[in-house]
Amino acid sequence: MSASASGPAPHVPKKTRLGILLSGRGSNFLAIARAIAEGSLAGVEIAVVLSNVVGAPGIAAARELGLPTECFVSRGRPRAEHDADVIACLRQHRVDLICLAGYMRLLSADFIAAYPDRILNIHPSLLPAFPGLDAQMQAFEYGCTVAGCTVHFVDEHLDHGVIVLQRTVPVLDDDDAHTLAARILEQEHLAYPEAIARVVSGRYRIEGRRFVAHAAQTS
Amino acid sequence: MSASASGPAPHVPKKTRLGILLSGRGSNFLAIARAIAEGSLAGVEIAVVLSNVVGAPGIAAARELGLPTECFVSRGRPRAEHDADVIACLRQHRVDLICLAGYMRLLSADFIAAYPDRILNIHPSLLPAFPGLDAQMQAFEYGCTVAGCTVHFVDEHLDHGVIVLQRTVPVLDDDDAHTLAARILEQEHLAYPEAIARVVSGRYRIEGRRFVAHAAQTS
Repeated sequence: MSASASGPAPHVPKKTRLGILLSGRGSNFLAIARAIAEGSLAGVEIAVVLSNVVGAPGIAAARELGLPTECFVSRGRPRAEHDADVIACLRQHRVDLICLAGYMRLLSADFIAAYPDRILNIHPSLLPAFPGLDAQMQAFEYGCTVAGCTVHFVDEHLDHGVIVLQRTVPVLDDDDAHTLAARILEQEHLAYPEAIARVVSGRYRIEGRRFVAHAAQTS
Repeated sequence: MSASASGPAPHVPKKTRLGILLSGRGSNFLAIARAIAEGSLAGVEIAVVLSNVVGAPGIAAARELGLPTECFVSRGRPRAEHDADVIACLRQHRVDLICLAGYMRLLSADFIAAYPDRILNIHPSLLPAFPGLDAQMQAFEYGCTVAGCTVHFVDEHLDHGVIVLQRTVPVLDDDDAHTLAARILEQEHLAYPEAIARVVSGRYRIEGRRFVAHAAQTS
């Protein structure tokens, strides 16, 4: 059935527009794109994929998917100046929700203030354990028997904002840091689309540092 | 079949003798005692239950189970002097493996050196996250969506030694710190006997900070 040219326009709910920021291959970006394509992440679309590194493989992958891409080289530029360009680009593409996907750069306070509770990041540990680089190696060497990943809102501290969700991964006796990192990455690819769905639903509140989903309506 | 009175004595493998140290109700001690009684924790026996607090309910519970108990009041005594009494008591009871079960007291370096890799503790968080007091409340207030518990060897740092195992607990949207702590405690009661079994088996090695179980023999 198609809408009559003279009738009222059918109601199409506005999709949440994602801005993806990456610096590398962007495997989490691709997991998000796949979830959207497969219909498991509904009500969202990728508005733009943005990199701070020339030649980031994730940008090439985005182009292959026919998505708008932008690159603002950050190296050697003042953070505030670079971030201003990125923010302008996100606004131009009418981005509602920003997803950091291996974006190897701290955001300025102005950037974070421009998108309060609208910037997500994924980190390959069960935060607050093992913030920073090489989190999987840190967990492995610490001797944890459970590792995992965390999707969280970005605040002004490194790997610190309100947690949307965490997924666990057992550390196996015959693991090394690489096999563990690979299994954590599989869980990241499930966690990020799921977390985006939770945020986009709007059915949550933040209590202190807690992300609390609203109970399902029983009416 | 019974051994002949004149024949060789039947081989009875020596049981690993546990020394339990507690300061309160000792619910983890009771979980260990239950696992032994039910046969799910084989090859061990509780040699003595020891408290540093007069009237600790865990001591009364141990007496009801017919277990040897001792109390060495720690309050007001120098740590080294108190620990020397405890060590002497553990030696007198021929303790092989010490299990801290809510023992609210740091061990002296001499105590730890007297039982290298022979002292276990359980902590209600996924270490290294949330060491110290009120770990469950810390995890709840941090907004983790996964909490848990850790059984670890005791070293000279607080809640820090080599991890034997960790078990996870989801944080639910309708949790408060108390309901979460109760569900973590259920997992502690499973984790502690399981960790003791792993250690008592002897089929492991410690690589750096990692507790690595030996692969099952395939011969």
